[in-house]
Amino acid sequence: MFEDIRFKVNADELIMMALKEDITSEDISTNAVMPDSKIGTVDLIAKEDGIICGLNVYERVFYLLDEKTETKLFVKDGDRVKAGDLMATVTGDIRVLLSGERTALNYLQRMSGIATYTSKLVKLLEGTGIRLLDTRKTTPNMRIFEKYAVKMGGGNNHRYNLSDAVMLKDNHIGAAGGVKEAIKLAKDYASFVCKIEVEVENMDMVKDAVEAGADIIMLDNMSPEAMKEAVSYIDGRALTECSGNVTAENIEKIKDTGVNFVSSGALTHSAPILDISMKNLHPID
Amino acid sequence: MFEDIRFKVNADELIMMALKEDITSEDISTNAVMPDSKIGTVDLIAKEDGIICGLNVYERVFYLLDEKTETKLFVKDGDRVKAGDLMATVTGDIRVLLSGERTALNYLQRMSGIATYTSKLVKLLEGTGIRLLDTRKTTPNMRIFEKYAVKMGGGNNHRYNLSDAVMLKDNHIGAAGGVKEAIKLAKDYASFVCKIEVEVENMDMVKDAVEAGADIIMLDNMSPEAMKEAVSYIDGRALTECSGNVTAENIEKIKDTGVNFVSSGALTHSAPILDISMKNLHPID
Amino acid sequence: MFEDIRFKVNADELIMMALKEDITSEDISTNAVMPDSKIGTVDLIAKEDGIICGLNVYERVFYLLDEKTETKLFVKDGDRVKAGDLMATVTGDIRVLLSGERTALNYLQRMSGIATYTSKLVKLLEGTGIRLLDTRKTTPNMRIFEKYAVKMGGGNNHRYNLSDAVMLKDNHIGAAGGVKEAIKLAKDYASFVCKIEVEVENMDMVKDAVEAGADIIMLDNMSPEAMKEAVSYIDGRALTECSGNVTAENIEKIKDTGVNFVSSGALTHSAPILDISMKNLHPID
Amino acid sequence: MFEDIRFKVNADELIMMALKEDITSEDISTNAVMPDSKIGTVDLIAKEDGIICGLNVYERVFYLLDEKTETKLFVKDGDRVKAGDLMATVTGDIRVLLSGERTALNYLQRMSGIATYTSKLVKLLEGTGIRLLDTRKTTPNMRIFEKYAVKMGGGNNHRYNLSDAVMLKDNHIGAAGGVKEAIKLAKDYASFVCKIEVEVENMDMVKDAVEAGADIIMLDNMSPEAMKEAVSYIDGRALTECSGNVTAENIEKIKDTGVNFVSSGALTHSAPILDISMKNLHPID
Amino acid sequence: MFEDIRFKVNADELIMMALKEDITSEDISTNAVMPDSKIGTVDLIAKEDGIICGLNVYERVFYLLDEKTETKLFVKDGDRVKAGDLMATVTGDIRVLLSGERTALNYLQRMSGIATYTSKLVKLLEGTGIRLLDTRKTTPNMRIFEKYAVKMGGGNNHRYNLSDAVMLKDNHIGAAGGVKEAIKLAKDYASFVCKIEVEVENMDMVKDAVEAGADIIMLDNMSPEAMKEAVSYIDGRALTECSGNVTAENIEKIKDTGVNFVSSGALTHSAPILDISMKNLHPID
Amino acid sequence: MFEDIRFKVNADELIMMALKEDITSEDISTNAVMPDSKIGTVDLIAKEDGIICGLNVYERVFYLLDEKTETKLFVKDGDRVKAGDLMATVTGDIRVLLSGERTALNYLQRMSGIATYTSKLVKLLEGTGIRLLDTRKTTPNMRIFEKYAVKMGGGNNHRYNLSDAVMLKDNHIGAAGGVKEAIKLAKDYASFVCKIEVEVENMDMVKDAVEAGADIIMLDNMSPEAMKEAVSYIDGRALTECSGNVTAENIEKIKDTGVNFVSSGALTHSAPILDISMKNLHPID
Repeated sequence: MFEDIRFKVNADELIMMALKEDITSEDISTNAVMPDSKIGTVDLIAKEDGIICGLNVYERVFYLLDEKTETKLFVKDGDRVKAGDLMATVTGDIRVLLSGERTALNYLQRMSGIATYTSKLVKLLEGTGIRLLDTRKTTPNMRIFEKYAVKMGGGNNHRYNLSDAVMLKDNHIGAAGGVKEAIKLAKDYASFVCKIEVEVENMDMVKDAVEAGADIIMLDNMSPEAMKEAVSYIDGRALTECSGNVTAENIEKIKDTGVNFVSSGALTHSAPILDISMKNLHPID
Repeated sequence: MFEDIRFKVNADELIMMALKEDITSEDISTNAVMPDSKIGTVDLIAKEDGIICGLNVYERVFYLLDEKTETKLFVKDGDRVKAGDLMATVTGDIRVLLSGERTALNYLQRMSGIATYTSKLVKLLEGTGIRLLDTRKTTPNMRIFEKYAVKMGGGNNHRYNLSDAVMLKDNHIGAAGGVKEAIKLAKDYASFVCKIEVEVENMDMVKDAVEAGADIIMLDNMSPEAMKEAVSYIDGRALTECSGNVTAENIEKIKDTGVNFVSSGALTHSAPILDISMKNLHPID
Repeated sequence: MFEDIRFKVNADELIMMALKEDITSEDISTNAVMPDSKIGTVDLIAKEDGIICGLNVYERVFYLLDEKTETKLFVKDGDRVKAGDLMATVTGDIRVLLSGERTALNYLQRMSGIATYTSKLVKLLEGTGIRLLDTRKTTPNMRIFEKYAVKMGGGNNHRYNLSDAVMLKDNHIGAAGGVKEAIKLAKDYASFVCKIEVEVENMDMVKDAVEAGADIIMLDNMSPEAMKEAVSYIDGRALTECSGNVTAENIEKIKDTGVNFVSSGALTHSAPILDISMKNLHPID
Repeated sequence: MFEDIRFKVNADELIMMALKEDITSEDISTNAVMPDSKIGTVDLIAKEDGIICGLNVYERVFYLLDEKTETKLFVKDGDRVKAGDLMATVTGDIRVLLSGERTALNYLQRMSGIATYTSKLVKLLEGTGIRLLDTRKTTPNMRIFEKYAVKMGGGNNHRYNLSDAVMLKDNHIGAAGGVKEAIKLAKDYASFVCKIEVEVENMDMVKDAVEAGADIIMLDNMSPEAMKEAVSYIDGRALTECSGNVTAENIEKIKDTGVNFVSSGALTHSAPILDISMKNLHPID
Repeated sequence: MFEDIRFKVNADELIMMALKEDITSEDISTNAVMPDSKIGTVDLIAKEDGIICGLNVYERVFYLLDEKTETKLFVKDGDRVKAGDLMATVTGDIRVLLSGERTALNYLQRMSGIATYTSKLVKLLEGTGIRLLDTRKTTPNMRIFEKYAVKMGGGNNHRYNLSDAVMLKDNHIGAAGGVKEAIKLAKDYASFVCKIEVEVENMDMVKDAVEAGADIIMLDNMSPEAMKEAVSYIDGRALTECSGNVTAENIEKIKDTGVNFVSSGALTHSAPILDISMKNLHPID
Repeated sequence: MFEDIRFKVNADELIMMALKEDITSEDISTNAVMPDSKIGTVDLIAKEDGIICGLNVYERVFYLLDEKTETKLFVKDGDRVKAGDLMATVTGDIRVLLSGERTALNYLQRMSGIATYTSKLVKLLEGTGIRLLDTRKTTPNMRIFEKYAVKMGGGNNHRYNLSDAVMLKDNHIGAAGGVKEAIKLAKDYASFVCKIEVEVENMDMVKDAVEAGADIIMLDNMSPEAMKEAVSYIDGRALTECSGNVTAENIEKIKDTGVNFVSSGALTHSAPILDISMKNLHPID
């Protein structure tokens, strides 16, 4: 669950900014016809099958507009829902329900879209032992929500950002003068809690990486055969990751390589939303 | 073009937040191997055909990290590019190029994805006189970028947010006691520069809307035939908009309705990114 | 009413900044003599006749300092009050009442001053059918409060800012190459929900504006006679606005012109405050 | 002069907020007709006689939108200007000049209005030795600009806020148990650099204040005669201040009291603006 | 006590930033093992003898993470505690207790360290009539907490910052052209509530300072004998302060000088923390 | 070096806040005597022997006040300096030099104090192969500066915060049901780039930790003998860390234990500052 501490410390600020983005001064339409508070309730309904994700974020949007708003959840993040399912009801000042609706759904639909797409890819990897990873190809200012959605869809997270792990790519290796040199510099420089990952393109680099004590070796744009050979050579002395434009369409080909992880940018940059709507808003007394 | 005022007043703050999201303390990998500044240059290359959009945002990411970074653009927003096209070069401190790469591309790829998808739908509407509109179904904290991308793809923008136009939906109409009453309240309440749009579902509502002086009438979930009838009745006394889940697949069916505008949430919530990459980073002297 | 959503999304941030402006570290005077919390109550009293406005903002200042503070309102925004009227009582920690007093009154007095002055001008226009408008000549970082006060005083709002409507002035027209060209460019560029207003100085420009389909025509520095002629020509094909330094002293002369709207910068930039004070603070038990 | 440090540390943030208040996404009118940068120049002209103040703030608005904008000043803050005087020219991207105009003038007009009104009151006090003071009755989020304007108009500043001096009013005195007790508590509690001011209403309180070592004694709502007596008793052992609704109309009556200072809230809460405009914007090559 | 207004207006923002500094996205360790809320309680125990300070700040850290957290305090700021003393219990969601622990203790230990060290120096001055002062040598972004801690340790505060009092040092005096000139300029420029302090190095400067009416004279790097002479000359016409690297080791030598105040930067820049820990965290039901 | 990206993305914001903390409205003393800009230069001189650290932060304070300020550095972070050494000169507007002096030194002295103390402890560990680590016991809102200072003093960094590595303490282990269970939950939950550290108190826990695949094992409050036994058992299968109140006084006793790392909170919470001053400020022409 996206627990309250995460909202207080990090997410609330982003959600408030999204609300400001949608309300410069006031919701004119609503204020024009509803000068006074009136309590109402509304249903949250799935319009497609998929994995729901972001329910607490959805709830939080209304809570931030009015802490007296009450949301009852009938499903939880990571659950599979079907078109037509009633997933929640929200009860509060109708003006709050109307003004917050779009922002709340914008979060929920996107997060559910990511969880749904991730879940689909995870299913394709079932039985292979390969775990699916996200990347840093997230939407700006959405990372905390999108990485969570990947996890709810059954994926695992790659590093959160540039500051919490080392990933040595070709330019880093070039600047250092070689794979071994780069790994050595990183071990000296980085916190001892950081794992060192290095991107390699051929067996020579694989060997250097193992020898220099890389924690993770990313096999970049290698053929399935080359990957198999690399994995066999590494033999558990480092974790292995395979990258490249992995999508639902082409994930098949890496299934027999024996790598530990496969990462996919598409999870966060190209998953379509899951269609969800708020229906049956009506006053209650 | 996304001009500098827009960056200074609104976008820079969002871009800086995206950079903070990606750098908590420092780019460890880069700092480990490059303790000192070294100037380099890198190419920006299209990996798919599409409409490029967000070049100034891309450039701005590096500028915000180091104002001495220089970007040469060989295309401009709204241009059609082909896989393999060299679109720009960026020259500056290699550490800046590496640390800003992901954030810069995250903006550029998403904006270009939206422009490309919008352009595709606009093409399907060619010759009909119908203009394509976006919605408020944008990614949280991305609206200023995404609405711009829709325009660069050939679309027009619907209202920016809840504060700059009036859109009376079923709940507003219900609260006011009817279409006419809602429009009257809105005219009294809203600034006289606000257009009043009202969402209708049948001919009775259409007639009330015209009579009460709505500026825009949105025909919601009506059949193509019903829309034709409504447009014929309205006869230029108000602008007409058609909504509902419009996508590349189903846009055909509204082409003969005579409506002025059709809006599509998919433009911003489900367009896949356009694949773009930075290549050939190398030091220069 | 200035409803809670507006506080949460936009106004609270400004009010907190105003409190920070008044309290760098602590209220030394109060803390020196009142080390502990003590509950007290205080009266809010009008010292002049006028239109009261900003009561919820006044209340919010104390609420933001301590959510347990309770304010009872005996009048509401837009009400006419007389010198000596008890308008509210505030009950809470006396330190909160003392530390918040100045900021709360600074908002209330200014907003009431604007509402009072607006109301006076509206009265002068009674029977003419002309509606009074504010402008963008508001105090920096006070617009959300000042535009609301104009409305509470009986005025209507002009555009909120540069982003929610188009106003083509001489320089825009010059850059475009003429009235018609400017209007055409604006219709292409702006969101279809934006009204297009154009500032004209003579009948030729009026004719061009009507022909090009301007939504609002502003008659700038025209004589009353010229305005009458223009209004007659326009004949309802566009709304008409008259501007120029309109004040209580000179508003008379535009009463017979037939324009729909008259705007006045003085409403927000030169209205004196309405004198209001907090009295009879005393501990309760 | 309002020097750069003050902008960097405090004022820039407020000015940027004012710009955001006026530009949610973009200046639509300007961007519609001027897609590209074009350099132009514009004159700043006084439309009324008065004391000009805020020239650097005016300049800063354009600078913050585009640091390449150049402002030439022909007068300086505190100068007396006459209607028609050319006070400055601003040269830069015409879009910057148009988008920043309103915000820049909103600051300049208000600050000049305050300086002008202050100057008028200072003149009325000439020869009396009494110095004119402002109060904390400033517009929210405008204090740094308004207190500066009072000084440019020839006034002196009272305390900046609740944290930089002690002012013991009736409620503080009541809570402490008396004038002497309040002063003693304040001396113990406050920083030794803080002056202690106490508000008194009669001679007994004056005597207690002197005895307890108050630095400043404010004579609150006393008759001119009572003030004279108090000043005579105090005899230089403390500074004296007279308050109450002092305006241009009634300042006469306190001229012979011998007090050192008189404070007036009207300086900042009710001064009308000074009318100033930007004229003759034209492209240059 | 560090009362709530101070948190709301100033300190909460700093505490939230400190929490963000410690939590980029989530507390991974805690979330991994505690997916759900569970209520627990924990003890706050002194591990060294000293003066406790910052209890409300400690409490506030948990409150800001979850307002339902309850802290019972058994001591109050300024109390002397002994190693082993139970000072408080905190009860709430165990995840909140774990995630907030480090930040809460970082504040409490540092503030208590400062109060303890201050108290030690104050004791050394007992009987001399000299009051101990802090300086502006505080940790960046900790001043509001550190100056409070000095007061709780029995010290008094020097000016809060550059804006609330005048301190004329050698460079100011040089720029003005002499001690008298500098004091005169300051009296004209500064608010009349500002005390004027001037730093002097010899008797000539002392005499000028007295003559020009300085409120406070700081004797800078003078020998004890020179200070005695200066104090005798000043004879109560101004307050006197002695500065220089005053620490527990060398404070002795200024005890007989007769100065009113002695300031010490070490109070805030070099006091070691007071060791405090949280123990016995256990679930309750 | 503390490179520019780190300033732009993270540190500038903190430094600006520190400047605001020191300047509420203006530097009154400086502005009183120096109404106009005058260029001057000042020396940065060490007053004690030690390791200098934070020179770029020192420089940045002046740069943020005025980008035209020029700082020449004669030493670099991590260098050993002696009392009297000229380390830098700063040239610029004297008002900037005066207003920024305190904030710049507050950063530099503290960072240098930490680097100096760290260096002392590192020296004590020379020849043992044990690396010295910091902790999260940093000053609130100073972590980015303090962790850097530890590295400049020759230490290595422990995790940056709660989000970039897993540290399982007694309460986590208790909640999970045991060492093995906690490690398993963490491996499932955390990103695969996170190292898992577990705190153990006895050999049974050590064995469980090794078996479950912990990356780092922290030996908490174990005797030197117990630590030796643990290290021998672990035999390179995990890194080992020893904690507890390690200071210069008691670090000796862990030197023979064979652990890889020892962490010390004192590095950041109790290091006294290094005394440094700015001298010889004088105008230049």
